[in-house]
This record gives sequence, structure tokens and C-alpha cells, in this order.
Amino acid sequence: MNHRLIIRSIGNVLRIEAIFMLFPLVVALINSDNSHWAFLWSILITFGAGTLLAFIKPKDKNFRTRDAFVVAGLSWILLSIFGALPFYFSGYFSSFIDCVFETASGFTTTGSTILTNIEVLPKGILFWRNFTHWIGGMGILMFFMAVAPTNASLVNLLRAESTGPSPDKVVPKIRETARIMYMIYLAMTVLLIILLLIAGQPLFDAFINAFATAGTGGFSSMNASIGAYNNIAVEIIITVFMFLFGINFSLYFVLLDKKFIKFFKDTELKVYLGVVIAAILIITFNISGIYGGIDKALRYSSFQVSSIISSTGFATADFNLWPTLSKTILVLLMFSGCCAGSTGGGIKIVRFIILFKAAKIEVGKIFHPGRVKSVTISGKKVNDETVSKTALFFFIYLMFLFVSVVLISIDGKDIVSSTTAVITSLSNIGPGLGDVGPAGNFSSFSPFSKIVLSFCMIAGRLEFYPILVLFAPSVWKKSLIK
Amino acid sequence: MNHRLIIRSIGNVLRIEAIFMLFPLVVALINSDNSHWAFLWSILITFGAGTLLAFIKPKDKNFRTRDAFVVAGLSWILLSIFGALPFYFSGYFSSFIDCVFETASGFTTTGSTILTNIEVLPKGILFWRNFTHWIGGMGILMFFMAVAPTNASLVNLLRAESTGPSPDKVVPKIRETARIMYMIYLAMTVLLIILLLIAGQPLFDAFINAFATAGTGGFSSMNASIGAYNNIAVEIIITVFMFLFGINFSLYFVLLDKKFIKFFKDTELKVYLGVVIAAILIITFNISGIYGGIDKALRYSSFQVSSIISSTGFATADFNLWPTLSKTILVLLMFSGCCAGSTGGGIKIVRFIILFKAAKIEVGKIFHPGRVKSVTISGKKVNDETVSKTALFFFIYLMFLFVSVVLISIDGKDIVSSTTAVITSLSNIGPGLGDVGPAGNFSSFSPFSKIVLSFCMIAGRLEFYPILVLFAPSVWKKSLIK
Repeated sequence: MNHRLIIRSIGNVLRIEAIFMLFPLVVALINSDNSHWAFLWSILITFGAGTLLAFIKPKDKNFRTRDAFVVAGLSWILLSIFGALPFYFSGYFSSFIDCVFETASGFTTTGSTILTNIEVLPKGILFWRNFTHWIGGMGILMFFMAVAPTNASLVNLLRAESTGPSPDKVVPKIRETARIMYMIYLAMTVLLIILLLIAGQPLFDAFINAFATAGTGGFSSMNASIGAYNNIAVEIIITVFMFLFGINFSLYFVLLDKKFIKFFKDTELKVYLGVVIAAILIITFNISGIYGGIDKALRYSSFQVSSIISSTGFATADFNLWPTLSKTILVLLMFSGCCAGSTGGGIKIVRFIILFKAAKIEVGKIFHPGRVKSVTISGKKVNDETVSKTALFFFIYLMFLFVSVVLISIDGKDIVSSTTAVITSLSNIGPGLGDVGPAGNFSSFSPFSKIVLSFCMIAGRLEFYPILVLFAPSVWKKSLIK
Repeated sequence: MNHRLIIRSIGNVLRIEAIFMLFPLVVALINSDNSHWAFLWSILITFGAGTLLAFIKPKDKNFRTRDAFVVAGLSWILLSIFGALPFYFSGYFSSFIDCVFETASGFTTTGSTILTNIEVLPKGILFWRNFTHWIGGMGILMFFMAVAPTNASLVNLLRAESTGPSPDKVVPKIRETARIMYMIYLAMTVLLIILLLIAGQPLFDAFINAFATAGTGGFSSMNASIGAYNNIAVEIIITVFMFLFGINFSLYFVLLDKKFIKFFKDTELKVYLGVVIAAILIITFNISGIYGGIDKALRYSSFQVSSIISSTGFATADFNLWPTLSKTILVLLMFSGCCAGSTGGGIKIVRFIILFKAAKIEVGKIFHPGRVKSVTISGKKVNDETVSKTALFFFIYLMFLFVSVVLISIDGKDIVSSTTAVITSLSNIGPGLGDVGPAGNFSSFSPFSKIVLSFCMIAGRLEFYPILVLFAPSVWKKSLIK
């Protein structure tokens, strides 16, 4: 292990986090909501800690795969701990664990909250809460790559933080890739803010909701989420943008590059669109009785499907009260998630496609034992190693699910609440069913369960490996500063 | 496809089924319970249909893999349909779909019932109901292999019907293997019957319960399952034997061969035992409050853990009323199931071990990218193809689960009842939670859901592939008798 490089990188990540905290500080000062002290202290501590760590000079500046994974795992954990400071200092949260839960939920773009009354919070705190979504959506290491000096080995950081079976570099240089991604992300967010303003949202709400939509996070400044506005235009805009932020960002680069055929030939995009349409139709039909008509049913179902599959987790209706068929479909969308390389969570649709095709080939082998056939996605061959890694990903997801559900169920909540709490955390959605449904929150879990769920959120966001490596003894064996 | 061979084999399987029906006929006649006509007609129809099909002479008597899988898939479906005839003719069932559900549940050793009052059934019918468990436990194709003329290609039938990632031939000859397996199975069943008689059970009940235990089925002649006897000796005997029938039968051959070290070095057996002990301890502790003491809690928890993990599904207590932690653990045991090559169901413990080790190796690759390491089980190397097939198995299990839960949830039952109904069917357990808990039954599902669940039971018992091949168009393309 290159411990020096790891420590220095984490230090730099913390310094970036401190700089990001300047934005909510400005918001706090403009609104003179008294939360500015919370930010000043947090910035001081975070920047101080970061600078201290960054003092350590590595002899070798090359990130080997293992270093990159350890950096990813540790920095996401530390981001959640240091990012919790403003919440803690604000005095609106009942314990530090609650603050860490809320921050992990923010950065991982989960959007689950332990707050029972969100609307009393000062604007500076609300801004920070949703800004973590925006930072976490594209990834803070991705930001680090965009600003770090050119270094080819940074590609290992990209691998550790990005989602999906194999990350794409849209251009050969990793720093350029990171910059392009962030530019697309920023441009889409700005467009969304403008549209929300046109639809009649106040400036602050437009920012807050745009951050939560872009990062597919789901925090809201309203207790009743987006439903509180009761504004159809806002709902339509957010429905469309949640869907859009669930698409692989490298496809937007393809679009910018005017390769329209390549864009529309993408297998994952086609399946994503198909699943969304099918789910909307079934749920609309299933809930039309409750809302007395197809139009309202379509409005709520399309918002909810887009919100859940993109792993945003906004709500305009309490889907916990919907019929079992609709709830079942929403839970399955929580597993699937959206596209690889998007800001969204879940297992990712492309993994389902790969394994579905692999299963088909496996059945085919029964008929033609000799024939060798490979899985192809969007016309490109997927190598056997990726296929078996993808299959293993399902197993790891399930093991995290199983172990966490057992740990959570010690609290004694009903089985639907505990199970969906874990699924929604692993897939970075936000709400689940039962006690943790859209009308509920995570406040009633024990501190132990909150730690488990925070851990699930980070593990799910990083797709497990950067967290699993932290369990390897060799990471901790040697003296940390060698 | 060798359609002639497939048809002839299915015909022979049906003839064997008709012969098996002679046993309940004898029981019906001895008890003069008026169900003998149901059996006479069923035997006539089943043997007649079988003989008609067996008239077709294949030119080539070699089972290629595909032929074997199609035979396995089709014969299990037809077994369930023809095996339903006695139930239907008896007049105690309200529809033919109910009869097929009950028969599929019997042969697949699931043990889920659509009956609301079991105790009114004639003894002949009750005998047949539980005899299907015993036949299905070791597998009817296994029986077919034991009586068929020597043919090396029969090994493909073994592959299609047996459970676990790779079936063992304990002796080089496939017919001998099948005979040895059936002899061990028979001997253990006889021993169990004798012990149950000693414990004070009437002869009929001893037979019924031994069949259900040996096949890890779970049908009972009592509405309150084994709990109805309130006999500790019976409970202890059945607890132990459910566990024993969940062990890989080839290990019993190892024991007979006096290779004790090999027996106790078996990785799967050790993990199986460990999981059982851990689950019993946690649940005992968790439910001790309900039963006012450790002794009663231990009695119920050990019975229930052994019953669920072995996929038997007997009950001595209504675990649906237990705390969430205990219920969660039982649901996870429904997924895991017991050992490969046993009469039990579920995903099988060895698959979890293989993938757990594969995941560990995958994490290791992050540290040592060049190093090549293989998964080993009981000291033997597992090849990469088996590992990726095993991982794919999880995916296929999940897909069957997801699709079936959606189809079942159309009925509008709560999410726990619908989900556990599917899990318990896929894993061949019996009871689930909620409406399908130990105190409930499957009668209130719609006919459509009953068909879906019957299908899940068969698909789960055959571990999916023999059912998946039936969806290949080439199976049906050419004229059936070519």
C-alpha cells in the first residue's frame, strides 16, 4: 500500500469539501439565518484536517488500483463524517450519528432523512444538505480528477468511484473526461434551474430541487417533498429531468459529438426507456381507481416511476398506500436502478441485460454444447470476465442486503420496513415502504441501525469493492505513515 | 431434438408414476375409505397414456444433454398433472388447478397446500399426497435411472434432475449410483418410521410423516402440522432427520465407505451445521420472551430452523407471530436452503460458499492484479465455468422471483404474503409469512396465481434450466414424432 499517497489524497479531498462548504456559508450570510457559524467552524476543522493530511508527501505519485480503491472507500466515509459538522453545529439535529446519516444520505444521493420537520431548518443548512447531492452525484473524486495535475494513474480513481460494470473514458485523457462530464452535469443543472424558475419556483427552491434532481438524490426542503408545491409544470420538468439524469453521461457526450445513431442504438438506454414506459402504464392502470381517473393516475405514476428508477426518491403521492402490484413494481425498480455512468444508483440496467443475455447463452449451450457465443451490448462484445464479475455483483449486493436486514431487524420494525430500508439505502433511492415510506422517515431507527444504513448507502454508492477492500488486513497492517 | 426418445422416456416415467399409485390404492383398500376408485381410474389413465407414448421407438437411444433437460422439464410437469388425478377424482378438491398445485407441491417437496381442512381427507388420498414427497425427494428420473437398462448417456438425466452446481457420481456407473442413492434413502426412511413408531406414533402417521421428512416435503395429515401431536420425542426425531435429509447423499456413501475424515472435512456440511446452530441460538434468544423460557424457545426454534433450512416446512409453532429478527432469519434460510445433492431445496449452501470465496478472490485481485487464484471447496478446485454458472444461478433465481412476485401481486395480497409465497415455492419450503404462514394456506390465491406458483415450484426443484429449455423454439419446431 502507498499509505502516503492515500493520506495525501484524502487530505486533498477534505480540502475540496471545505471549499464546497463556502457556498452554503454565502447562502447563510445572505439570508442571515444564523447558521453561518456552523459553516465557519466546519470549514476551519475540515480544511485544517485536510491540510494536515496533505502535508504528507508521497514518494510515488502513481495510484495503483488498490490505492485508488482505498482512497475511494475512506474518502467517502470521511466526507460523510466531516460533512456532518455543519448539521451538528447548527443544533437542529439530535445526535452526531443522525448528522452522519443525513450527510451520507446526501453525498450518496440517497435522500433518506432522519428529520421529522424539514421546514424549520435555516436556509444555509438546507442548501448544504442538497448541495451534497449535487457533489456526490457526479462524484467528488471525479471533481478531484478534474482539478488534479495530469496523471494517467488517476483512471484507477475513476474506476473506483464510477458506477456500472466498466467505466467509459469519453476522451483518452482522464482529466479531460472528468472535466467534460462535470461541464455536461453543470450545464444540465443550470438548464433545470432556469426551467424551474420559469415554472414559478422561488430561486432558493429552484436551486435546492435542481441539486436533488441532478444528483438523483431526493432531499427536499418540504416535508411533503415535491408534492408540497402541487405544481404540474414543476412535476413534469422534474419527471423528465430525473429520467435524463438516470442516463449514462457518456451518451450525452456522444450526442454532443453528433453521433445520433450511436446514441439511439444504445441497448441500455432502449431498455431503460422501455422499462420506464411499461412501469408507468401498469401502475397508472393499477392506481386509476384510487385517483378517480387516468389523468391524475398518470401524473402520479410517471413521477414516481421516474423518481424511483432514477434513484432520486422524490414523492408527489404516498405510494405506500398504493395496491400491492404497484408497490411491488416500485420495489423492483429500486433493485434495477437506472443506467451505468449516470448519477443514479441501484444495480444498473446494463447488468441485468448482460446477465439476461448470459443466461440465454447458457441455455443455448444445452442445445449446442460446443458452440462459443459471447454477450454483446450495443453491438460490442462483453468479455467473459466482465460477465462473471457482473454476476458476482448480484451476489455481493444480496449478501449486503441479507446481512444488513438481519442487523436492522433487531430494532423489531416490521419486515417490509426493515427490508425496504436496506434496499433503498443500498440502491441510494430514499424512501422505502411501511415506516420508511414517502410519508415516513428514518428517525425511529436505533443509532446502530442508522450506522448500518449509512454504511449501506456508501457501500451501494461505491458499488461495494472500495468498501470491501477496507476489510483487507494489509490496508491497516503497516504503520500508516511509512 | 430426439423427439422420439423424449416421448418414449416421458411415457415410461408416467408408467412408473402409475405403478407408484398402487401403494395408495392398497392403503385405500385396507382402510376401505372409498378412495380406491379414484386411484383405479387414475392408474388406468396414467398407465394408458404412458404406454401409448412409450410405443414410440427411438432410433437413437442416447440422451444428449438437450434431450435429457427436455425430458426432465416435461416429465415433472406431466407428473404433476397426472398425479393430480386421484385428488380430482376423490372429490375433495374444488378445482383441477387446485389438484395440480397440490401435486406439484408434493412432487417438488414444497409442501404448500390449498386445503383448508386436511383432516377430513380419506387415508388413501393422504397417503398419496405424502408419497409424492417421497418420490420427488430423490427424484423420479433417478428412479427411472435405477430401473432403466444400462446406458451411459443417462448421466445427462442425472444432471438435469439433481440439485447443486455439479452432481457427484459416487460410483462410475450411473445405474449403480442411482441404486445406491435410493438404497440409502430407503434405509434412512425405514429407520425414521421405526423411530416414529417407538416414539408412539400410529403406523399411518409414522409413514406419512416419514415420507414428508425424507423428501423434505412438509405435507402433514394434521391441520396444525407436527405441532398437533405435541410429542417432544417425535419433534426431536423429526428435527434431527430433517437436518440429516438436508445433507448431500453422496456424503452418506462416503460414510458407508468408512471415509470418516472425508465426511467431516466437507466444507458444505460444516457451513450447514454452523448456520443451523447460529440460527437456532439467535432465534432461541429472540423468542424466549414469548415462550417464557429458554427450554420451550429452544424446542420451537430448533424444530423450525431445521424445518426451514432443509426446506421441509413442517411447523410446531406459528412463526409468523415471532419477532422480525427471527422471521428475517427464517426467510434468509428459505433462500439458502440446505446442501446440494440432498432431497432439500433452496439455492444450496455450497453455492453461497463458492460465491463468497469468488468474491474474496475478486477483492484480492485489487491488491494483486496479476495473481491467479481459484475457488476451492473441500480442498478441491472449482473451475471458473462452475463459478460463473453459480453466479448466474443467483441471477436466474432472482429473475424468477421478481417476475413471479409481480404476477402474484395482481391478486392484491400484502407484499410480505406475495413475496414469501414465491420464495417458499421457488425454494420448495412450504409455508411463508403473512397469509401463507404456518397457520395459513394457499387456498385464497387466484387460479392464475396457483398456476404461477406451481410453475415456480417445478422450476425451483429442477433448478430452472430444464424449464428454461422448454422456452426454446427448437424444442417445439419440428413435428413431434419425426
